[in-house]
Amino acid sequence: MADFQLTILGSNSAIFNHGRHPTAQFVHVNNTHFLIDCGEGTQERLVEHKVKWFKINYILISHLHGDHYFGLMGLLTTFNLLRRKEKLTIFGPKELKKIIQMHLKVSNAKLNFELKFIATNPDGKNLLLDLPNCTVFSFPLNHKIPTTGFIIQEKQFPRALDLEKIQQYDIDKSNYKCLIEGKDILDKNGKKIKNNEITKKQETIKSYAFCSDTIYDTSIVKYIKRASLLYHEATYMDRDKNRAKETMHSTTLQAAQIAKKAQVKKLIIGHFSSRYIQLEELETEAQTIFEETELALEGKTFKV
Amino acid sequence: MADFQLTILGSNSAIFNHGRHPTAQFVHVNNTHFLIDCGEGTQERLVEHKVKWFKINYILISHLHGDHYFGLMGLLTTFNLLRRKEKLTIFGPKELKKIIQMHLKVSNAKLNFELKFIATNPDGKNLLLDLPNCTVFSFPLNHKIPTTGFIIQEKQFPRALDLEKIQQYDIDKSNYKCLIEGKDILDKNGKKIKNNEITKKQETIKSYAFCSDTIYDTSIVKYIKRASLLYHEATYMDRDKNRAKETMHSTTLQAAQIAKKAQVKKLIIGHFSSRYIQLEELETEAQTIFEETELALEGKTFKV
Repeated sequence: MADFQLTILGSNSAIFNHGRHPTAQFVHVNNTHFLIDCGEGTQERLVEHKVKWFKINYILISHLHGDHYFGLMGLLTTFNLLRRKEKLTIFGPKELKKIIQMHLKVSNAKLNFELKFIATNPDGKNLLLDLPNCTVFSFPLNHKIPTTGFIIQEKQFPRALDLEKIQQYDIDKSNYKCLIEGKDILDKNGKKIKNNEITKKQETIKSYAFCSDTIYDTSIVKYIKRASLLYHEATYMDRDKNRAKETMHSTTLQAAQIAKKAQVKKLIIGHFSSRYIQLEELETEAQTIFEETELALEGKTFKV
Repeated sequence: MADFQLTILGSNSAIFNHGRHPTAQFVHVNNTHFLIDCGEGTQERLVEHKVKWFKINYILISHLHGDHYFGLMGLLTTFNLLRRKEKLTIFGPKELKKIIQMHLKVSNAKLNFELKFIATNPDGKNLLLDLPNCTVFSFPLNHKIPTTGFIIQEKQFPRALDLEKIQQYDIDKSNYKCLIEGKDILDKNGKKIKNNEITKKQETIKSYAFCSDTIYDTSIVKYIKRASLLYHEATYMDRDKNRAKETMHSTTLQAAQIAKKAQVKKLIIGHFSSRYIQLEELETEAQTIFEETELALEGKTFKV
């Protein structure tokens, strides 16, 4: 089982308010570190919440509204000033490449590290990364401008070792890799042992799904089915649902409906409108439909 | 005498550190409000330090290193979300116009307010604004990329009313404007009164000079001569003067030398390198050359 955690860095919508900051999240799956969205001031939040921010390998940007990416150039500049050497890969809407290039050009900056940009496709589910310990996909959200969500899935071998049963056989440990891959093996005496005699079915694969800004849209459900943890924006309370529709955002109840339909284990809601000073009522309202709901409070860490 | 004040919003160099933030300053001259430079997170500092930020009429950007302008797009977006209607004018390097336009385009944003951009000229002293209560000029600094300083000068009429003497005459108040402009007038009986009988010489004109990022360069002195208040960067202590030269920044002693040569009334130093945790030693070092030196501490307000 991977060490798979999410830390909330910012979860206010649009503007800074009530000590809350625009969207940014830090995720790690073992030694792979992701930043998802990067609102203004994210570099300060990363330090404040003591995550391993200098180890970020991948930055995923959902869309080009400022509250989701205005902190990106500052973070890249800081990486450079602190003499980062490791390659960094950014996934985001295609126009972002030009924006980054232009900012670097006007400041006459030369990066010390390799920066790779990969444009996301706002249509359909797309594999972004196939890493040894996880895979990352983008999928479409329904907002004012092209927007994608992201899903990070722990990668597991098809079978898990059944350690109790293995002890009954005379097997060299070098065979373990073949076993978790589902292959039959030979014991030390050359006798064939069938895979399912000494392995068991793998537990559910853990996954984290991120739905940044979107109107209520059940077509998202298919992309996030049975996620271990779902972040879904809930900018508004149900009483402000007309405003949610106008601005192409969701309400607490709508986020909870999506979580319920997708049969996820846990929902966290965020991207709170500044009109709500106390957030507890958003949590309580979402829980009327999906009990396992928590607020995406800044600094909070969730195990996936 | 105008109500002319400066509030420091950020005075760290390059990166966020020790609770310090990148460059930004708020200046008002009566009802005219300026933001000078706009590092990342400036919108949060403006609220934190309780200045009349929504009234900013003019934004002056010295150069396009990120720590001097990465907060600009966020501030413009916030003005828009909060339904600003008043015109805003930005002065800055010509490439900034394209950057602003590109960010607005990708977010499909339409501003509710008129945004005027005026490119600064990095060569020579140039009049940017001639307002009823002040004038603003840019002047060249010597840094890695084109950079300007700014000087804001209170505008005063050539003469001030001598209220004691005026009481001895029978003069209608409608003549006061002519008097401060230096003209002779007629009293209520039609008798000519010479201007200098009832006016006195105006006090020194107050001015604030801002020198953001620059290597030590005495050619700057002529632009800031006898300023009431001078901000001059002092990124480094004298012991790090080689580093200052390499990075085209100044030391405390160099900033103090400039203040002394320009015969300013008061110097404030800022743009502190993150290598200095305690700043008092920078102040003390500058004071060995120019006694009237203070630190540009965040949240601090200076009367010009």
